Order: sequence, then C-alpha cells, then structure tokens
Amino acid sequence: MVTPIDPTAVGFLLAENRSMPMHVGGLALYKKPEGAGRNYVRDLFQQMRSAEEIAPLFLRHPHRSARTAGQLVWEDDEQFDIDHHLRHSALPKPGRVRELLELCSRLHSTRLAWDRPLWETHVIEGLSDGRVAMYSKLHHALVDGVSAMRLLAAIHSSDPDERDMPAPWAVRPRPPRQAQPETETNLADVSMQALRTAMGITAEAAGMPGALIRTLTKSIRNETSALSLYAPRTILNQQITGSRRFAAQDWPIERMRAIGKATSTTINDVVIAMCSGAMRAYLLELNALPETSLVSMVPIGLNAKSSQIASAEGGNAVGSIMVKMGTDLPDPAARLRSVHASMKAGKEALSSMTQVQILAMSALGQAPAILPVMLKMGGITKPPYNLIISNVPGPRTTQYFNGAQLMGNYPLSIPIHGMALNITCTSYDGMMCFGLTGCRRTVPHLQKLLTYLDDELLALEKAAGV
Amino acid sequence: MVTPIDPTAVGFLLAENRSMPMHVGGLALYKKPEGAGRNYVRDLFQQMRSAEEIAPLFLRHPHRSARTAGQLVWEDDEQFDIDHHLRHSALPKPGRVRELLELCSRLHSTRLAWDRPLWETHVIEGLSDGRVAMYSKLHHALVDGVSAMRLLAAIHSSDPDERDMPAPWAVRPRPPRQAQPETETNLADVSMQALRTAMGITAEAAGMPGALIRTLTKSIRNETSALSLYAPRTILNQQITGSRRFAAQDWPIERMRAIGKATSTTINDVVIAMCSGAMRAYLLELNALPETSLVSMVPIGLNAKSSQIASAEGGNAVGSIMVKMGTDLPDPAARLRSVHASMKAGKEALSSMTQVQILAMSALGQAPAILPVMLKMGGITKPPYNLIISNVPGPRTTQYFNGAQLMGNYPLSIPIHGMALNITCTSYDGMMCFGLTGCRRTVPHLQKLLTYLDDELLALEKAAGV
Repeated sequence: MVTPIDPTAVGFLLAENRSMPMHVGGLALYKKPEGAGRNYVRDLFQQMRSAEEIAPLFLRHPHRSARTAGQLVWEDDEQFDIDHHLRHSALPKPGRVRELLELCSRLHSTRLAWDRPLWETHVIEGLSDGRVAMYSKLHHALVDGVSAMRLLAAIHSSDPDERDMPAPWAVRPRPPRQAQPETETNLADVSMQALRTAMGITAEAAGMPGALIRTLTKSIRNETSALSLYAPRTILNQQITGSRRFAAQDWPIERMRAIGKATSTTINDVVIAMCSGAMRAYLLELNALPETSLVSMVPIGLNAKSSQIASAEGGNAVGSIMVKMGTDLPDPAARLRSVHASMKAGKEALSSMTQVQILAMSALGQAPAILPVMLKMGGITKPPYNLIISNVPGPRTTQYFNGAQLMGNYPLSIPIHGMALNITCTSYDGMMCFGLTGCRRTVPHLQKLLTYLDDELLALEKAAGV
Repeated sequence: MVTPIDPTAVGFLLAENRSMPMHVGGLALYKKPEGAGRNYVRDLFQQMRSAEEIAPLFLRHPHRSARTAGQLVWEDDEQFDIDHHLRHSALPKPGRVRELLELCSRLHSTRLAWDRPLWETHVIEGLSDGRVAMYSKLHHALVDGVSAMRLLAAIHSSDPDERDMPAPWAVRPRPPRQAQPETETNLADVSMQALRTAMGITAEAAGMPGALIRTLTKSIRNETSALSLYAPRTILNQQITGSRRFAAQDWPIERMRAIGKATSTTINDVVIAMCSGAMRAYLLELNALPETSLVSMVPIGLNAKSSQIASAEGGNAVGSIMVKMGTDLPDPAARLRSVHASMKAGKEALSSMTQVQILAMSALGQAPAILPVMLKMGGITKPPYNLIISNVPGPRTTQYFNGAQLMGNYPLSIPIHGMALNITCTSYDGMMCFGLTGCRRTVPHLQKLLTYLDDELLALEKAAGV
C-alpha cells in the first residue's frame, strides 16, 4: 500500500544525514516479576516476536516511486521481517549501567535504513542487578518525540498480574481495557488515533512554510521572548558528528517539589535550574562558560481552548519558551530565580498569543528538532538558543509490562547541527527521569553532567533550606 | 581524499539492495589464553579499539560527488568513529552456539550504510563454554570473499606468546615479522598490497564487460562444462529476501583425506560430495528434489604461469568448474564418483584454456557473487547453476591472536537473487570449517543441513570402507 508522506515527515527524512540521524528513542528498565524463571527474558522476547499482525505505522518505509514522479511516499514492506526490528541482546561483563548506556549510545548513533520500516526494539539482558532493559528507536518521521514516549508508555498496565500484553507494534484485536475510568488523564490511554490526528494537524501547520515560519520566528524573537537574540555562542552550538553519547539518571520528584514549595517556583523551574547549574559546572570545567547566560528552548503545554487545535494532550497545544538559564550567576538560588522569571514571562506572552501564533507554536513544539533546519539556522554563527530542555509528563503510578515492573523510563532525543545536546525529562511513578543525548565529540564527557545535576539538586535544597 | 572506485566495486555497490546486501563475513572462535582474567575480553576489545592509525581500506566510503558528475568515488571518512565499526557485544543466555549463530545471522542480514566505511567487527562474549567469538563483515566492494578471509586470517600468529598484535584495520608501523621463512606459502603472509594488486587486475578484467563477458559465458557453457545448460530449477533458484540464516560446523580433514585415499578422489571432491548428499536429504525432506542432478559452481585455483595474471595465490589464477553433484543418485559412493568425474573433466577443460579465457575465469572466480547480476541471470527462469560451493585453503597450523587460540574460522558469504544458498569452506589446523549462508525464507531450516552433512560424511566413510 502506498500512502503520501506528510510534509513534516518529509522534512525529517530529507534533513537526515549521517551526522544527524532523525530518530527518537526510549530506554526502559524493568524488574523481573517474582519467581521469573531463567527463560523469562527469552520468553518475553518470543512473545513480543510473535505478534500476529503488525500495525501500519510499523510496516511502512519511505520509498521514492517513479509513479509519483520521484516524490517520497510511504510503502508497506512486502518482506517485513520482525527479526530485523526486534532484537534480543545482552550486555558484556560486568553488566553495569555504564555498559547499558554505552550500548544505547551506539544503538542511537546508527541511522535507520530507509529500505525497511523505521524502527527497532532491543530487549537487553545481562545487567548485573538482574534488571531487563528495553531500548526502542523510532524515526521522527513516524512520530514526534512526545508521541514516541507515549506510544512506548502505552504498552504498560498498572496491573502487575496482567499477562499476554501485546508489543507496541502489534495490532490489538480490541481496545485493551474497555471500562477504563476517565478520571485521570493517563498517558497510557492516549490512543494512536488521537496521536495521529494531532500529528496530522501539526503537519498541516508545518506544511505552510512561508507565512507560518515568519509568524513562528516573530513569535520566538519578539513576543514570546526577545532573549533568543542574546543566546551566546557555546561549544554546544556547532556542527555535530554522527557519534552519540547517552546518559540517564532519575531523582525523586518529591525533592524538586519541596524546593519549589519553599521558593514559590514550579517543579519544572527546578528541573531547568538543575540543568542550569549542571551546564555551568560542566562548561566551567572545560573553560568554556560564556559571560552571558545560556538560553534554553523549553516546549510547554498551553491551554488553548479557543484555538481549536487538537493535540495529544487532549485540547492543549504545545508552545515554547526561551528561558534565560542564569548560567552566568554563581548562586544556585539566583539561577532558580532567573529561570522562574523567564518561564513566567514566557507563559504570559504565550497566553496573549493569537490563534495563528499558537498554531505556529504548536508546530514548533511538535518539531523542535527540525526548526533550525527549517529556518536554515544550522549554518549561522549566532544560535537562536543554546539547548533544548523538554519535560514530558509520564504515568504517575507503577506500571507493568507482562508482570515486569517498569523501574525507569529515559528518553533519547535528536542532537542536530548547532544544537549538540538535548535534555529530555519524563516523570514516572514519583521519579523525574533525565535523558541526555549529545554528540560525543562536540559534548565531551557528557556523562559528567549527571554528577553535576546531582550536585545542583543538593545545592538548590541547601539554598531553599529544605 | 577522493579516489576512483574500480568497475567491479561499483558493480557490487550498484547491485546491492535491501534483499541483497553485498558484504562477506567471517566468524572466528577463540579460546582464552591460560590465566586470562575476568577483564580479558574487555581488554582485548580496548586494545583493538585503540589503533592509532586506520588503514586506507577501512577509512573510505562510497560517495556520489557533484565534482565527478554524480559518479561514485571513494572518499575518506572525515568523521571516522571506531566505535561505530568495532563493537563489544554479548550473547543472551544460555549462550549456546545457537545463540551465536542467531546473532551472526542477524548481523549478516543488515546492510552496511554507505555513509560510513563499509565494515564492522563485533567482539562477542557470553558463550557458555567461555570461548570468545569475533564476527566481521566487509563490503564486497572493498575485498572479494577470498581476500576477506585472508585479511581476517592475516591478523593471526603461530606464536601463542605474541601480544600487542594489531587489529586488521590498524596501520602496522613495519612488517610484523621480518625474518619469515618463505618455505611455506602461509596465507597470513599475503600482504594487503598483493591482495590489492590482484584485485586491481581483476577489476580491469571485470571492467571490460563486452567481449569479456561473452568469453566468460562461452567458457562456462561450452568449454569448461556444458552441464550448466542442464541445471534444474530448485527452490534455491528464486528471488530472495534480505533475511539471512547462517550455520557453521567443522569436521576433521583427516576423515575426508581417508575417504579420498580409499576412493582415489580429492579432499575437495569429498567436501562437494558431502554437500551433495546433504542437499539431497534436505530437498527430499522438503519434497523438492529435482529429478536431474543439481549443478554447483566451484571456484578452483589454476596453474597459469603463462597467463601473467598476478593473484593473491602468488601466480595462480582462479577459475571455476560446473560440477554435476549427483543429487539424483541414491548411493553416496555414486555421488562421490559423479563429483570426481565432473571435477576432473572441468580441470582438464580449464588446463586447455587460452590466456583470455583464464583472465575471464579469474574475473569470475574473484566475483562469483556478482556474476548472475552481470549476466542479468537474476530474472531468468533457468539457473546457470544451483549453488556455489567454495573451498578456500587456510592456515594449517594453530593460530593465535594476542594469546587467544583460534578454534575455528567460518566464512559468511552472499546469497543473491537466483542463488539463495552459498556454501564456503575453509581449512584450518586440521579441520574443514563449513559456513552456510542462505536467505532464511527461501532456504527454510538451513541449519538442518549441518546434520545432513554429518550424515553424509559417515555414509561416505562406510561406502569407502574406512
């Protein structure tokens, strides 16, 4: 079956090259259920492998057809081979988290070949603590990063006793749980249909490059925040290579909430302040800290009832704010204040935006990675912002996949030319899970940022007196 | 640095598609040295990873340059990343040979992306018996299959105490052993330069498609053997998919020598007779055995002193013989006689060939996998032959890599449209190592052939009275 590819997806496909693979990923860690036998992982893998019917999203690959005058189209893979996409791997000894992150870095560095459907899932055993890992990658042309996280999250259940749960790519015979209470908007409940609808609308928006991009640029530069004009040059804002380094860790959300409460800031403010302090320490050590503050682009959810924009968050659109991180300030509390003020001003600016502007923001929010490509910013010397920090809400309760408890869930994102580091966080079961994805050459010793994030959380607690 | 790609290599690059990746591979099994510590594999990997300078062959990748009017050229990878090419992997539990062959099947199924140098080496731990495996793949555009085997073999030493031995891709500061005795033509002594010279000449030959291909075709069909006109249709001679299955096993050469001695046949005859009996049993079980005998194409070394063709075997050219395998005969001894008679007739025909014909044969011998593509045989219903069986001589003595004893060395080859199975054998230290590479869909349960090979060796021993 041949179907057209929407303009956003075409953009992601064409923007891709060896230095800039355009896939997002997720690393999930699981604890085996009580009494799991020695064949538990193999059986889980075999069950995932045995999906009878594959969902259309996981079957199609991009194809240049002579019939469509050389345009890219989606075509179903007539020779679909699950063994190419689902893989059973193991970590070399000693099987620490370090070996796992090395494997994920390597897997995330490799481009997905266009001649097959654009996804892979690796079931990984061999962690010395007995946990099981699952690394998945999906091309950004199939799903945006937020939807990818949701898609992967949607396989879970809050019921530890549920079994025979299908893999993300399996066509479900019927809705998995029909009598689902609607009280809490659980991310696992967002249907693929809703995601695709949301993406369709975004794609339309992104498909009007002229006027829309002008609005978008105006929105960022003048109305949302003029800050981006002042983003300093940093080592992060260079051409990148295709080598990736991934680092991941989680911290209790309760610690961030306590700091927020004591300082009248939000959890998200604290997350960004942690990144700010960590970036300051990291750049100081490299003797590469700019005199003026780093500016981060932070996508946020917007109440936009009047905008008629359907989105994956159910009626909310996604906008973005330029945040002055305060990396020039030596005091952790001052950095948090800078972040908070910036976020507040940004939100106020967004709330006064027109429908078209929100539509533009929405396109931006869905496609932050492609923005510099669209605006041809990659080649300019002055970056519009220094890095992207996203915080995507996740499930609040303990989740299970076929009885295995989800212990952590870490996003892998897309560094691009001019934006060598991406920090994406997601909340899960009382933890804030950080995923740092960078170009290994442009962002040396990226894993040190984990230590600095930890240091900064302690420093913020001390400053807030909690 | 930009260098032209020779016509043969261009042929391999352009013939490649998702169903037909054009790389050869090798699986080597090692026993750790006495007293190897728990970090032995990691240390070995790190040593291989730390090559200071990379040989040109391992640095270049194909590139379409606007400067050369869209022609393919070799370009050095400016962002060469050893971590993309050298990988440290582990087998999932229980770590049997089965899991190893599954991993190799998967690794061999995946195309090498053109935007990076066309090779990978995987150091694999986790075999339950403590052995260490190394799977390597190289694109056929870089080296032909025989040279690839040699290149990988050339890293070894017969000295178990030698250490600090460089990886195949490391530029050696000087010839590794200067006072090498010249008495035995050891494959490990063949220099890369000799290989490249040989390939260059072959490439020239392959670069004259018109008259040469005509000679080639004539040689196969009329002079070397008319048999190929009678190759029956089989399940092996269909369009293939990109899924691979690899199976490997070894048997003592002494057993084959004893059969040969008792029946006045050669070791190579016995190898082909083993394949014949195995194919017969396999096709019988699938109810797919043709009434007439399968025909295999067997590349062989030729004495061709007058031909002025330099080759990797030092003055010998490589030709090929069409062998009537005798799969229609129920008696193992009769099959062996059929193989022997076919081989004898083919060798006699080759010995009477002219220089141009031998040159053509040499081109064929170096490039068996591309032949059907060159002759556009892929689409025709009548196959020129049913399968390719190669037997490449390897080192006769025990080999070591940094103290690890090479226990076995199995070639992975290239199935193509119309030729879904390839059997390549190589001798090593008294063993004949068989590597069977097939399309997993076209050649179901390929691993059963190992049992049938074993059965046939026993049957031949019984028939020969040894």
